[in-house]
Amino acid sequence: MRVLIIGIDGYLGWSLTQYLSTRNHVVGGVDAYYRRDQVKEVGSQSAIPIADPKNRIEAYKDTYGKDLYWVEGDVNDWETTSKIFEEFKPDAVVHLGENPSAPYSMIDQAHATWVQKNNVIGSLNILYAMKEFAPEAHLVKLGTMGEYGTPNIDIPEGFFEVEFRGRKDQMLFPRQAGSWYHQTKVHDTNNTIFACKIWGLRSTDIMQGVVYGTRIDEMGQDDPRLLTRLDFDECFGTAINRFACQAVVGEPLTPFGKGGQKRGFLPLRDSMQCLTLALENPPKDGEYRTFNQFEETYNIYNLAEKVKKVANEMGLNAEIHRIENPRIEMEEHYFNPDHQHLLDLGYKPTHDMESELKLMLGDLVQNKLRIEKVKEVLIPHFRWDGSRHRSKLID
Amino acid sequence: MRVLIIGIDGYLGWSLTQYLSTRNHVVGGVDAYYRRDQVKEVGSQSAIPIADPKNRIEAYKDTYGKDLYWVEGDVNDWETTSKIFEEFKPDAVVHLGENPSAPYSMIDQAHATWVQKNNVIGSLNILYAMKEFAPEAHLVKLGTMGEYGTPNIDIPEGFFEVEFRGRKDQMLFPRQAGSWYHQTKVHDTNNTIFACKIWGLRSTDIMQGVVYGTRIDEMGQDDPRLLTRLDFDECFGTAINRFACQAVVGEPLTPFGKGGQKRGFLPLRDSMQCLTLALENPPKDGEYRTFNQFEETYNIYNLAEKVKKVANEMGLNAEIHRIENPRIEMEEHYFNPDHQHLLDLGYKPTHDMESELKLMLGDLVQNKLRIEKVKEVLIPHFRWDGSRHRSKLID
Repeated sequence: MRVLIIGIDGYLGWSLTQYLSTRNHVVGGVDAYYRRDQVKEVGSQSAIPIADPKNRIEAYKDTYGKDLYWVEGDVNDWETTSKIFEEFKPDAVVHLGENPSAPYSMIDQAHATWVQKNNVIGSLNILYAMKEFAPEAHLVKLGTMGEYGTPNIDIPEGFFEVEFRGRKDQMLFPRQAGSWYHQTKVHDTNNTIFACKIWGLRSTDIMQGVVYGTRIDEMGQDDPRLLTRLDFDECFGTAINRFACQAVVGEPLTPFGKGGQKRGFLPLRDSMQCLTLALENPPKDGEYRTFNQFEETYNIYNLAEKVKKVANEMGLNAEIHRIENPRIEMEEHYFNPDHQHLLDLGYKPTHDMESELKLMLGDLVQNKLRIEKVKEVLIPHFRWDGSRHRSKLID
Repeated sequence: MRVLIIGIDGYLGWSLTQYLSTRNHVVGGVDAYYRRDQVKEVGSQSAIPIADPKNRIEAYKDTYGKDLYWVEGDVNDWETTSKIFEEFKPDAVVHLGENPSAPYSMIDQAHATWVQKNNVIGSLNILYAMKEFAPEAHLVKLGTMGEYGTPNIDIPEGFFEVEFRGRKDQMLFPRQAGSWYHQTKVHDTNNTIFACKIWGLRSTDIMQGVVYGTRIDEMGQDDPRLLTRLDFDECFGTAINRFACQAVVGEPLTPFGKGGQKRGFLPLRDSMQCLTLALENPPKDGEYRTFNQFEETYNIYNLAEKVKKVANEMGLNAEIHRIENPRIEMEEHYFNPDHQHLLDLGYKPTHDMESELKLMLGDLVQNKLRIEKVKEVLIPHFRWDGSRHRSKLID
């Protein structure tokens, strides 16, 4: 299968390139390197050193014995997008090319509008490019579990049967996204459903949980150019990445507020497995389907305890102190999402956060100095109300 | 009350300027004149001749004895938007400044992305400007009944109680919009709810039905510079406008497909009444509320019959012939939307489509030559599947 990866240079994109290549798929991709730029903009760097694009492409050739189709470009530009689709002729498109940061989108007006424009218009261009140049292709589109927010009822996978005043209909489950970034994913969901309906495109929309981990087996141990990035700053680092890096540099692990926020999590290797299952089991023409993609749910405080436990076992001293929550969100809530669709396709979850965390901490310890150098970015200072100050400890 | 109208030069905007001014509100506004440009772009013109902006401003001064705050500018530009909010200091903002055309948004990639960027980013800028410069102001935002699509259950006003697997929550009613344009209104709804939640803004989101009519009493009979536009082309003319203009030039009235599509309608004068009720009865701080704003529902074939009846009574020969539907939509469906909130505030519907149509046809007959000159735009040729041909008669 010819798989075009939008965002090939990213955390998931570069991993998926390798994961699919070992399974004999033909992979190509495009990236505008915004992630590299924006991590610098917020004063941080990847904890794992990553090769520049040229060296990644060379490492790919050395490993797989063939050239990698790789375009530097922005899918917000229609000329670029249409050229890539015409040239590469994808059977499937994996769209990982959106800005993925809630805090980055909340910085100010300029960042909010940039993120919304970048994500919504880039995705709409991809839908148009599929219609024009690859109408039979399958779009695997990265959404987020954050689209659903934290409703007080179970969360189905995308759609549910509504009974209202004695009549019934099958409807999209209402979204309640919690940042300008998360809102873009909701907008994309609505746009993608519509494109499938009017043009007969097919799409799998992945409501993904938080992905963690520093490596997949396919990267091997020998060529550091094959490694993928791992961000830990307040914008691009998730809670679990930040906790792991805090443990490595001897700083307290800092859940936001009460820490009762529940989220779904899965390791990088399982994200790869799930995306590949979606690709290898495409929906039928005109079908739009949703996969809730996560493995286990934890609340953030329990997650910190998990990181602390593994860190302690590895001889790292780790304490937990809650800090002021920069976000406006529920800190304790009901959370019970379905995640059956991927299991039905044969997904075998790793179900072992602790051993994954051990691998992750091992990789991070070797890059302790890189984290230490910019460690102030571990504590948030962009706040949802628009103000800025570094969150203080609250216990 | 100081009311800032985004889109002051439009069909609703120019009418509302006069309606509010006679009620002693201080009105100002901004417009980028995209509507004037785009109606030209699709080869049409307003059936009612309209004054250019300079003459409108002069007519306003002649009528109301005071200057009108009027800025030529685009709310997609942050400098413009922030300057207007700082200068005008609105108590309320009525956002009528979005591209309102489903067919225009479906023309091609360039138009689809322009409409989505224009509407979503423009609206997001307004939310940011309110947060920065007018946090106590009330945003009256024009959505559309089209956000809901045509579900097989009743349509509440914005939110409803969901019972799912034995648990309950109050949730946004799921949206199913039928064009790239309609999708922008859904995106705006989601963005606006979020802004109210995190910043405590207040907003009334108007899910408006199809508005028709050529005048309101406040425009008087003496100064043609006070008249508002009336479009009838395939992009900017609604079914009822097109039917009325077809009757005037002796062309058949042409419902799309089966003609069983049901929609909500209200006359221009009642749209003004409703918007003013919303303005004069604002929600509380942080409240986001939805008004379904329409008066009566008709299916499109019955609407054509209504226009035909009134036209015949006025001596105009009018026949009805259905044409190929350029859209992808349900042509027969359940449709039962609530519209109680405005009635609760004291809305007194005119409830007389026939007399409104008589006034409208009277105004249009006087401009028969303007319609005749470009009458080919009455028949659609932009199709939802991306192809183009003029719809043929099917009966």
